[in-house]
Amino acid sequence: MVHAADEINLAMETSGSRACVGLDPRPDMIPESLQRVALDAHGDTAEAVAAAFTEFNAGIIEAIAGACAAVKPQVACYEAYGAAGWQCLLDTMAMARDAGIPVIADGKRGDLGSSAIHYRESFFGGAPGFGDKPVTGGDAQWLTVHAYLGSDSVLTILDDPAEERGVFVLVKTSNPSSGELQDINLADGEARGTNVADTVAALVHEWGSARLGQCGLSDVGAVVGATYPDDARRLRKKMPNTLFLVPGYGAQGASAADALAGARSDGSGVLVSSSRGITAAWTKTDTDDFAGSARQALDAMNADLSQG
Amino acid sequence: MVHAADEINLAMETSGSRACVGLDPRPDMIPESLQRVALDAHGDTAEAVAAAFTEFNAGIIEAIAGACAAVKPQVACYEAYGAAGWQCLLDTMAMARDAGIPVIADGKRGDLGSSAIHYRESFFGGAPGFGDKPVTGGDAQWLTVHAYLGSDSVLTILDDPAEERGVFVLVKTSNPSSGELQDINLADGEARGTNVADTVAALVHEWGSARLGQCGLSDVGAVVGATYPDDARRLRKKMPNTLFLVPGYGAQGASAADALAGARSDGSGVLVSSSRGITAAWTKTDTDDFAGSARQALDAMNADLSQG
Repeated sequence: MVHAADEINLAMETSGSRACVGLDPRPDMIPESLQRVALDAHGDTAEAVAAAFTEFNAGIIEAIAGACAAVKPQVACYEAYGAAGWQCLLDTMAMARDAGIPVIADGKRGDLGSSAIHYRESFFGGAPGFGDKPVTGGDAQWLTVHAYLGSDSVLTILDDPAEERGVFVLVKTSNPSSGELQDINLADGEARGTNVADTVAALVHEWGSARLGQCGLSDVGAVVGATYPDDARRLRKKMPNTLFLVPGYGAQGASAADALAGARSDGSGVLVSSSRGITAAWTKTDTDDFAGSARQALDAMNADLSQG
Repeated sequence: MVHAADEINLAMETSGSRACVGLDPRPDMIPESLQRVALDAHGDTAEAVAAAFTEFNAGIIEAIAGACAAVKPQVACYEAYGAAGWQCLLDTMAMARDAGIPVIADGKRGDLGSSAIHYRESFFGGAPGFGDKPVTGGDAQWLTVHAYLGSDSVLTILDDPAEERGVFVLVKTSNPSSGELQDINLADGEARGTNVADTVAALVHEWGSARLGQCGLSDVGAVVGATYPDDARRLRKKMPNTLFLVPGYGAQGASAADALAGARSDGSGVLVSSSRGITAAWTKTDTDDFAGSARQALDAMNADLSQG
């Protein structure tokens, strides 16, 4: 068993990249040639969309393997297409694993008790059948989660003891309205922090403190948006041993320096996510070479981050 | 178009019930006779589990129709079984609609921007294909959601203007660790409330205030656990026009009086959820009449709530 943080850390070292490529396919991002093949085979159905997404992701994964630290399928894009979409998600996760790329399922799940166990099964496998062996489940290494229900919910999803799966807890998100709840200030007597995001950060640190890999990072990571670099610097102090997953670079307007604001003093501990900026790069060219364009965009992102 | 709150309100009046039946199937809850049929048809696979869940839910839905206000499938139970599980979820929602029962998808989703739109498509339908018409999507009326990302996330999921879909925002959950984040106290200057759950409640009230149905309730509901009745009473004052979805009755130890603590002064505005207490009632009998046992348990719950 390889600890989830060690696996990501190794992928960062081997690839020389801190990039996490978001796999968020949508119909308007699929080249017409792939659309046509799928329509011929399946008609104008969810199955056609799912089949085209799978072909598209296969091309992207082949092109980016070895040049990124992880991939991050956005679960919403897949489940919008029902059963066919879910199969595409599972196939995408398996293709990434086969290509040696760690998978972060961006599902933002958050539920209690037995439901947390079922979400673990959905993304990490092990759902029981009617016999005595597990029948199915996904094969991600990490899942993004909400902490609003507290430790019942977050810790139930993890293996015990720390092994090959991890979670990224939403701490400070990149969107404009993230402050409505995350930035509100706490009363003086509250021990964990001065605002809500701080408090979640302190919980993340507590949950992860006994779950470190050999690289010194824990399997309880944090989502910290690149659009709020001052928050990232403050939150790093609350979470010294936490891997940050950083959305908001590129499409949402944050620079490389913003995205790396939460890095540890040696530059480690940050994984920067980009989705459309890479996978839809071909739409800004005059070709339909989506895979080659994605690799070029990823190379440019890697260069930008290594100067950032 | 019927406003989502009016539809639930009508179902409460017609059935005389405030019960929401949780459809949270798990393999150990399925009678052996149904297991055997599914194993014969599909072997020891996820498909077998999903086929048995569908049969089981069909029996439950037929038995409880007309005697409950809503059903609430727990999405985690289905997606743990991959594509077959998702198809079962969609079929279950359709069967409930065909039986005239409003459906609350308990997915606890929470994401921003375009991902929020995809979650809306997952549960409310309308996902685009490669042609000019939507190709798929669920047919729930309500979805449970996290508010941690703020209004970007919650309001994007809703129709605009208010129509036949609604959300239940997690405000105060029923689990033991819910207070870790939800109960922390805020600084004096914070305008929306004295703790985090209060603040989410104030946001729910703001979001819903211009979205009332004819019954006077909005399509932005709130999850308020029965296990914290004092909180429910306090939160009702913050959310006078909000439909409460109340988990924790029965299996989690809350009484009818606890579950109804958040009702409005006329007794309205509360939907009380029970899952295993109804659908697994047969396991405490010496028969495998799961449907009949569920109806008996529901009748008993309805009687308990009307005295509570």
